[in-house]
Amino acid sequence: MTITVKGRKERGRALNRRGSVGTQYVYFFGEGKAEGNRGMKDLLGGKGANLAEMTNLSVPVPPGFTITTQVCALYYENKNRFPGGLDEEVQAHLARLEQVMGKKFGDPRNPLLVSVRSGAPVSMPGMMDTILNLGLNDVTVKGLAQRSRNERFAYDAYRRLLQMFGDVVLKVERAHFEEALEGARKKRGVTQDTGLVVEDLKELVRTFKKIIARHAAQPFPEDPREQLRLAFHAVFGSWHNERAIKYRNIHRISHALGTAVNTQAMVFGNMGSDSGTGVAFTRNPSTGENRFYGEYLANAQGEDVVAGIRTPQPIESLKKEQPKAYAQLVSLYKKLERHYKDMQDIEFTIESGRLFILQTRSGKRTAQSAVRIAVEMEEEGLLNRQAALARVDAGQLDQLLHRMIDPGAKVKVLAKGLPASPGAAVGQIVFTADRAEELVETGQKVILVRQETSPEDIGGMAVAEGILTARGGMTSHAAVVARGMGKCCVAGCSDLVIDEKTGTMTVVVPGKDLQLKEGDPITLNGSTGEVIDGQAPLIEPKLGSHIKKLLSWADSARRLRVRANADTPHDAKLAREFGAEGIGLCRTEHMFFNEDRLPFMRQMILSDETGQRTRVLDKLMPMQRSDFKGILEVMEGLPVTIRLLDPPLHEFLPRSEEEVHSVARSMQVPRSKIESMVKRLHEVNPMLGHRGCRLGITYPEIYAMQVRAIIEAACELARAGVDARPEIMVPLVGHVNEYTRIRDMISRLTQEILEAKRVKIKFKVGTMIEVPRAALTAGEIAAAADFFSFGTNDLTQLVFGFSRDDIGQFLPFYLDAGILATDPFMSLDTIGVGQLVELAVREGRKRRPDLSVGICGEHGGDPKSVEFCHRAGLDYVSCSPYRVPIARLAAAQAVGKDR
Amino acid sequence: MTITVKGRKERGRALNRRGSVGTQYVYFFGEGKAEGNRGMKDLLGGKGANLAEMTNLSVPVPPGFTITTQVCALYYENKNRFPGGLDEEVQAHLARLEQVMGKKFGDPRNPLLVSVRSGAPVSMPGMMDTILNLGLNDVTVKGLAQRSRNERFAYDAYRRLLQMFGDVVLKVERAHFEEALEGARKKRGVTQDTGLVVEDLKELVRTFKKIIARHAAQPFPEDPREQLRLAFHAVFGSWHNERAIKYRNIHRISHALGTAVNTQAMVFGNMGSDSGTGVAFTRNPSTGENRFYGEYLANAQGEDVVAGIRTPQPIESLKKEQPKAYAQLVSLYKKLERHYKDMQDIEFTIESGRLFILQTRSGKRTAQSAVRIAVEMEEEGLLNRQAALARVDAGQLDQLLHRMIDPGAKVKVLAKGLPASPGAAVGQIVFTADRAEELVETGQKVILVRQETSPEDIGGMAVAEGILTARGGMTSHAAVVARGMGKCCVAGCSDLVIDEKTGTMTVVVPGKDLQLKEGDPITLNGSTGEVIDGQAPLIEPKLGSHIKKLLSWADSARRLRVRANADTPHDAKLAREFGAEGIGLCRTEHMFFNEDRLPFMRQMILSDETGQRTRVLDKLMPMQRSDFKGILEVMEGLPVTIRLLDPPLHEFLPRSEEEVHSVARSMQVPRSKIESMVKRLHEVNPMLGHRGCRLGITYPEIYAMQVRAIIEAACELARAGVDARPEIMVPLVGHVNEYTRIRDMISRLTQEILEAKRVKIKFKVGTMIEVPRAALTAGEIAAAADFFSFGTNDLTQLVFGFSRDDIGQFLPFYLDAGILATDPFMSLDTIGVGQLVELAVREGRKRRPDLSVGICGEHGGDPKSVEFCHRAGLDYVSCSPYRVPIARLAAAQAVGKDR
Repeated sequence: MTITVKGRKERGRALNRRGSVGTQYVYFFGEGKAEGNRGMKDLLGGKGANLAEMTNLSVPVPPGFTITTQVCALYYENKNRFPGGLDEEVQAHLARLEQVMGKKFGDPRNPLLVSVRSGAPVSMPGMMDTILNLGLNDVTVKGLAQRSRNERFAYDAYRRLLQMFGDVVLKVERAHFEEALEGARKKRGVTQDTGLVVEDLKELVRTFKKIIARHAAQPFPEDPREQLRLAFHAVFGSWHNERAIKYRNIHRISHALGTAVNTQAMVFGNMGSDSGTGVAFTRNPSTGENRFYGEYLANAQGEDVVAGIRTPQPIESLKKEQPKAYAQLVSLYKKLERHYKDMQDIEFTIESGRLFILQTRSGKRTAQSAVRIAVEMEEEGLLNRQAALARVDAGQLDQLLHRMIDPGAKVKVLAKGLPASPGAAVGQIVFTADRAEELVETGQKVILVRQETSPEDIGGMAVAEGILTARGGMTSHAAVVARGMGKCCVAGCSDLVIDEKTGTMTVVVPGKDLQLKEGDPITLNGSTGEVIDGQAPLIEPKLGSHIKKLLSWADSARRLRVRANADTPHDAKLAREFGAEGIGLCRTEHMFFNEDRLPFMRQMILSDETGQRTRVLDKLMPMQRSDFKGILEVMEGLPVTIRLLDPPLHEFLPRSEEEVHSVARSMQVPRSKIESMVKRLHEVNPMLGHRGCRLGITYPEIYAMQVRAIIEAACELARAGVDARPEIMVPLVGHVNEYTRIRDMISRLTQEILEAKRVKIKFKVGTMIEVPRAALTAGEIAAAADFFSFGTNDLTQLVFGFSRDDIGQFLPFYLDAGILATDPFMSLDTIGVGQLVELAVREGRKRRPDLSVGICGEHGGDPKSVEFCHRAGLDYVSCSPYRVPIARLAAAQAVGKDR
Repeated sequence: MTITVKGRKERGRALNRRGSVGTQYVYFFGEGKAEGNRGMKDLLGGKGANLAEMTNLSVPVPPGFTITTQVCALYYENKNRFPGGLDEEVQAHLARLEQVMGKKFGDPRNPLLVSVRSGAPVSMPGMMDTILNLGLNDVTVKGLAQRSRNERFAYDAYRRLLQMFGDVVLKVERAHFEEALEGARKKRGVTQDTGLVVEDLKELVRTFKKIIARHAAQPFPEDPREQLRLAFHAVFGSWHNERAIKYRNIHRISHALGTAVNTQAMVFGNMGSDSGTGVAFTRNPSTGENRFYGEYLANAQGEDVVAGIRTPQPIESLKKEQPKAYAQLVSLYKKLERHYKDMQDIEFTIESGRLFILQTRSGKRTAQSAVRIAVEMEEEGLLNRQAALARVDAGQLDQLLHRMIDPGAKVKVLAKGLPASPGAAVGQIVFTADRAEELVETGQKVILVRQETSPEDIGGMAVAEGILTARGGMTSHAAVVARGMGKCCVAGCSDLVIDEKTGTMTVVVPGKDLQLKEGDPITLNGSTGEVIDGQAPLIEPKLGSHIKKLLSWADSARRLRVRANADTPHDAKLAREFGAEGIGLCRTEHMFFNEDRLPFMRQMILSDETGQRTRVLDKLMPMQRSDFKGILEVMEGLPVTIRLLDPPLHEFLPRSEEEVHSVARSMQVPRSKIESMVKRLHEVNPMLGHRGCRLGITYPEIYAMQVRAIIEAACELARAGVDARPEIMVPLVGHVNEYTRIRDMISRLTQEILEAKRVKIKFKVGTMIEVPRAALTAGEIAAAADFFSFGTNDLTQLVFGFSRDDIGQFLPFYLDAGILATDPFMSLDTIGVGQLVELAVREGRKRRPDLSVGICGEHGGDPKSVEFCHRAGLDYVSCSPYRVPIARLAAAQAVGKDR
């Protein structure tokens, strides 16, 4: 039940009417019986519904009652007044709670204490308010002290109540209490609140009361019932506080939902040696092993565990100390896991030998653990296959495929960039690709640190352990190449100032810059973007039988095919091993950056006329042909989509003065010739420049050479009995005329070659859809194309007007401020970019029903984006080889979500 | 009747059936009576229908007959065979033609000659074939010679027939004939064909026949009827030649239309002194004066006029020489103008005292003439107002607003760039803005020549006569600023290599580069993009009462409002004078480039933290406030849309080493500080970078300063009784959250100021729609916006993925090759960009019916784009002040087209 803001008023009125004929406002839970259940989230809030559910399962949660979200609506509707009849209902439930707990609210000898918490239908962690220990006052605190035989505990609970109540209910600035606490600690000469003794706490209680008297509109109410009433006001009021409204705006949660209020008996684990508190997991969250796992601290409260002063015992020790409670816990954990059909993270407290479960929820786990638990639960019959597949976070699989920093290690983070390629790497700093290659030859391990990488750095990138750049985003050159290589990369670390000349890297920290130099050891965490000082300990990835089994299930379940982006036979082989069903993007330009080809490429660019260019291209052709032959052979029987030359020609020219000098010498041309060409080809916005099919149209001889290389390679393989399936892809098409012009050239040339060679091959011709205009005119283009491949990197750049190379200047801020929920280069923007994808698929298929449609941007390996691609009816996704397993799983999960 | 390719076959069959029951294949025209009329274009083609129309008007056109487009369809349907019965119909019509002309086809003494021409329903100039002088052979040529008493004329006509027939019908390569002609000219020692004597022509006839015999499948047919039959085959065949197919593809003309074939009697103006030929206009095409105007050449053919060997006489001389023919011509021209309701351009020939009108069509005219003719025709009652408005090419009005090169002058074009800002300019070359200012102070006139201009060049641009850049497109900085200044500009002249250091500009011509240096005089033609050597003579613009009247009619007729883009009170005043109804785009950044502000702007950028930045901004605020006050005051009572800061901050920093040095000195900061900031702010693709609202979000204090300046300016004016109407516009929004964040800031701040000042003002807050994502999510954004303004420059860049700064590398090629029909930065791409505009208007208005929607890109001044804006339901267009009259007229014309 999601209600828009507009509907709130109406709903309020409807409830009001129902209210007047006796709607139930309050729901009880306790003693193995609750009036609600987990299906009633909209009415009882998430927390209230779960407490009811557990109670019904005979799980001993501290009893209590929930005031419904309907009351919240009425409360706002009636200008912050409770509806008539609520008070009577609350009193009745409170009486029942007293009876169940065997304590009385406000009883001087055996006082019942309660907590009051908000709980909305949708989780809003940390957004709304909580008050503990309600029911304490100057009289009952003594009763609690006596009963617990722990005066310090009682006064500590009391001062906490005053502090929370003062802050949350009476709106006294928190700083006043903090200041007083700080004074008390100073006076006692301790740094932790736990160092305060009972006298200090008594003094603090007095001070806190004075603070409240001075700053609040009313004094602290000694009457527990008044405390409760005011607390309800505060919790309902908190639904509309600034923080909560902002949170709901960012997360697009309806303001009309309202919150429920949960009142629950307090239980204490520090009532003596037969008391205690702990946390347990129904299976091992690190390994997934099916064994009860947890920690326990006797005579303690949860906050003692957090403070870290005492070391908890393994859960097994409880067996000896409190065998009855332990046995009960064991039977409960099994029941909870069976009920929720997932590994549970359980918080419990034992008060004077009586076990209470405070909370149970699905436990966080490592990827390894998640996979094992999912597979074993399926085998145990607890989950069906689709459910087991859904249980593993596909994105988390990255952990299984890369090395990582030991989670237990303490590290010093120097700076933070973008997590551009997952994994971890340790090595010494080098600033140039050449130097990287030199040092690696002498057996050293290096991290290549660059302002940004360019295709000329490929050699250094290949030998480095990891790559760090000061500029560039998630789809910058460094990031894309690193992911393709399965190599750790932190990109766009804008706090770094890199000076290649002096061989230094400065971490900018206002007022206290830190300088590192070549040879200094650093560690990169490509999964978080952290740059870490020195050598952090790494742990190796583990791939086991569980993940293999899970992926085989995924393969049977999914509809979407999964291909890989690969430019070399080596990568293609890797991709096949990871389960790729073809190459979705083979970039031909990387082949030109090889040392033996670059000079030819440059000769070609420096050519004055077409004839000269063609002669140089004739020399490059056999090299490209052999590249393609290699890849097509590895991918035998599977499609290989080859993209014609995409980057602007100036990327192949030298940049720095020295490079120009050296290239001029080796090519034996005047330096001025190179300089003038560099100047002539310079572009203000290369991303929007003379590249892609624009090059293929103005220099048709380049594309002709590539097409010849592809078709001849396929012919040679066909003769040798190899089933090669090239798909020629035209990049950056924005107008149908661009595409048809090049397609006509391809058709003509291919026919010519096939006739001359007398061979038959299977091949397709299609286009990238990466320019918004291509998506908007997809119908026209589809009429002449065998396939579409969405280049969602460039499409995202153009739809947002973001340069992936420059986004570091503002994207982090946008994410922090909630302007964007996610980096659109990591997860496809389904609202904007997705709208164009859907339009293009619809219009394309309308014109050509057998059109094959895929995606080859970086999004192909992002689970959410894969789900979108499934929904949008794409035929396949393509991603870097290392992400193929993720895509396989995500594609299977998408089928489940679709149902 | 437009039929798709798919429908062709079916249609052919249908015709076949009708054919068999006696459809009419051939339509006669002649002797004041035609079987067709101008409504039958689909059947008779454009030319055939017009010939019929004129004949029916009793205009003496050479008689003839038209074979219908249905025959063309049947011809292709029947595998290139004519339908049965056609031949009989042709023979019957030929007999009628012989009778009308008093000559006989193939008659040795008095031969009838005919022309055969194609004529499709849609005009395809120069795309299909024509054959003249059919009916000549070795025998009839003698009859013609005798009859005309001009043997040279007869043999020249014969050799022309052979040449055309050989080329068009018999597919002999044209080069063979050219070669033979060249040989004949050499032999005779002349350079023109007109220098050949009769013997040469007789010899050529023999040679041409040999050429045909050698290269064609058959010899030249001496039988005139066979000539005619083969010519029909050739013309129908030409409908499917490669050139024609390509043309139709580019212009999206259906291949199924087919062509008609027109056979028409030849008439000759060189039959003696009672013969002649001429061209006349029904009104003066230069001035528009309502007086018959033309030229005449006695005893000559049209080609003699073209060859320019004899000087024609004014049309008045005909009155004396042939009073009867002249009187007939005068009565005809009046009839034709009344009939076609437009100034006519008439070609006529007098053969032996008998007047023939060869062609009449609407005459080309200057802007001045067009305006006068339209206004006077309305006053004469010939046209109604809407028709008069439609009669002037709105784009042509540019001519009335700028100086131009004397159309009669002979000029040497050095190179060609983009026609970035119309008009013409003469001056000496300078390479820097500073030098421009220096020289202008000494009274010289300069042309500022730059690689590309930047905001720092504004001073030099303002004083220069014209601006020439080697890089940048129609919406580059130079182009936009120049148009705003109404100053001539040629941009993106990529054949120039500019070396500021040596003070030279090289025009790259392979093998023979041309170097110019500072001080050399050049002339720019901003309307054509030509760069001309030396000083060309210029003529001044003339604005008269006619254009004023026409524009006042336009204002009453149009629905679309017209605003102007202006950044200063001076431009705003100009805009108001040109009829602007508000400012649609006031760019605030130009204000920061003033000499007195730039240092503050730089201080702000170099600030380490917000506080320091705010202090500098506090100094800039009063300056901005006074800028806004000035503009708002000039535009009293009209809306002024002010765009918050848009360009990336690095645009304000110095670039060259020297500039950095000098700025560091004057600001008293270390050079390294500036260098490191330049490095830090550098962007790979600034167009897609940290600019627009992205700046406003990361540096909210900048926008806050601007908002304060705007609102305070409006308040001060309101107090002084001035009705100021600011509209604050947020640039580069792509996500609704960007917009709402800034709008919230604006609302908060505005409320604060208005409460403090206790004034009420009218103001709006809205956003540019220039990022595709904004258009795709316009509904969400509209919920919080008072207005949308389409920034179609950036929207076009992003929808196409074109950088307007770099487009010169391939756009000229694209236009030449017909890949794009027009430059999308000049005329809005209605298919792609337009689709997003329409979507955004629809979704925006759905969410907010009172949303005001305009366009403020350069397209606002392009007539076709204005028409689109009208159709798309926009409220206004905004363009540079100099284009406001164009937009006013175009908006009125759009209303007429809409009906």
